[in-house]
Amino acid sequence: MRNLKLTLSYDGSEFCGWQVQPDAPSIQGTLATAIGRVTGENVLPQGSGRTDAGVHALAQVATFGTNSLVPTPNFIKALNDVLPPAIRVLEVSEMPAAFHARHSARAKTYRYRMYRGEICPPFLARYVWHYPYPLSERAMVEAGELVMGEHDFTSFAAADPERGARLAEAFQPDGDDAPSNIRRIFSSTWKVEGAEFQYTVRGSGFLHHMVRNLVGTFVLVGKGTVKASDISKVLQARDRSLAGPTAPAAGLYLVGVEY
Amino acid sequence: MRNLKLTLSYDGSEFCGWQVQPDAPSIQGTLATAIGRVTGENVLPQGSGRTDAGVHALAQVATFGTNSLVPTPNFIKALNDVLPPAIRVLEVSEMPAAFHARHSARAKTYRYRMYRGEICPPFLARYVWHYPYPLSERAMVEAGELVMGEHDFTSFAAADPERGARLAEAFQPDGDDAPSNIRRIFSSTWKVEGAEFQYTVRGSGFLHHMVRNLVGTFVLVGKGTVKASDISKVLQARDRSLAGPTAPAAGLYLVGVEY
Repeated sequence: MRNLKLTLSYDGSEFCGWQVQPDAPSIQGTLATAIGRVTGENVLPQGSGRTDAGVHALAQVATFGTNSLVPTPNFIKALNDVLPPAIRVLEVSEMPAAFHARHSARAKTYRYRMYRGEICPPFLARYVWHYPYPLSERAMVEAGELVMGEHDFTSFAAADPERGARLAEAFQPDGDDAPSNIRRIFSSTWKVEGAEFQYTVRGSGFLHHMVRNLVGTFVLVGKGTVKASDISKVLQARDRSLAGPTAPAAGLYLVGVEY
Repeated sequence: MRNLKLTLSYDGSEFCGWQVQPDAPSIQGTLATAIGRVTGENVLPQGSGRTDAGVHALAQVATFGTNSLVPTPNFIKALNDVLPPAIRVLEVSEMPAAFHARHSARAKTYRYRMYRGEICPPFLARYVWHYPYPLSERAMVEAGELVMGEHDFTSFAAADPERGARLAEAFQPDGDDAPSNIRRIFSSTWKVEGAEFQYTVRGSGFLHHMVRNLVGTFVLVGKGTVKASDISKVLQARDRSLAGPTAPAAGLYLVGVEY
């Protein structure tokens, strides 16, 4: 059996998220249907992690096993012919049997796009968080740097601990699913890009809602409600109630996964 | 009564077009509802012309009369607060009573975006025509130049003559609605923009489907089915059956209206 790795981009606006659900259109389910139409096989592709409803991907990675003999370049075209335009396969490659989209992941990068202009262009409404109110961008840059390194990110995990642990998409080098909330952040930067203020974070793995909760907290710093230097205290407290609200899904992108 | 001019941008993907319809969401109807909520008045704004289902606007213009005393800058914010994010009011200004969005228009500019890359990014799927097949861009540039000047554009008008005449959005300096198919094209250019090939046309006015029929015909020229020099013959024939198919709505933008 071949082990195929897919690299995918998707507009998450009209999906219930990555994970297959019985009565709602998911990325995983739509992809499974497309693979079924191309290979005739019934298979559920495994993603590098789950993205929530409305969250986008520039380069999500998924793996699945197949007995199909279709050459990999033809797979790209065949899948894109049957997938909706909101999901595109960018690459297909054959991997050793041990390669797994989630367990083999070494690092992931996410980006969050805030649109700062007074009027958000209608063509960006699905793709950014429109936030035209005053913010200290300097304080947010400073706060962003403070989450770098290895920390217990419990304060930034989804509030429901059971759901948080279940959905945690950890980097687990040994492939187990220990629900630890410790993650290593390699880089964490805010940057002005035209009318946008963008946060890019690269880490070993991310807890459920972690990037959106970080952004929500950085916005409290930008508003002056929380001091930049308090970010370290919020981390140490391991208490979700001390961090900010969850930023809207529309601004979040899975930029890429490293193996 | 004040005569207000609105400049609007919209993502036309989820609307049945500009014109109000009984059972489908239109730009005009959605705007009328928003104006009603802000002013308490029941008024149907008049656009510079109708855009079809799926066609976008960077700067459509509409006028309406109101007894509301709300200052114009407040109108922008009040309307955007009640409009869906797919429609944004960019400007509001008070005009003399004689000013009319359609009758006073002197020129309009449209742009058509073709995406030429092999895989269309999911974030562009609603906003371009994905056309990854070979085309002679040089021949299309040449054909584009041949429609400049004053012509009878019957060959490029919507096939149903009754509908075409009814929907014609002519520049009529005297404000009547004579259904002539003669229009003046001031500029007509194809240009490579990154992975896109874009057509921009500025003219005195445009018949129903005219830009999309021009694009469909230019694509026949790009494929070699029609010679660039034949464009003049197609114009002279005044016969819709000699021109190419109507290009998809998603790639078309009303860029602006001049008065």
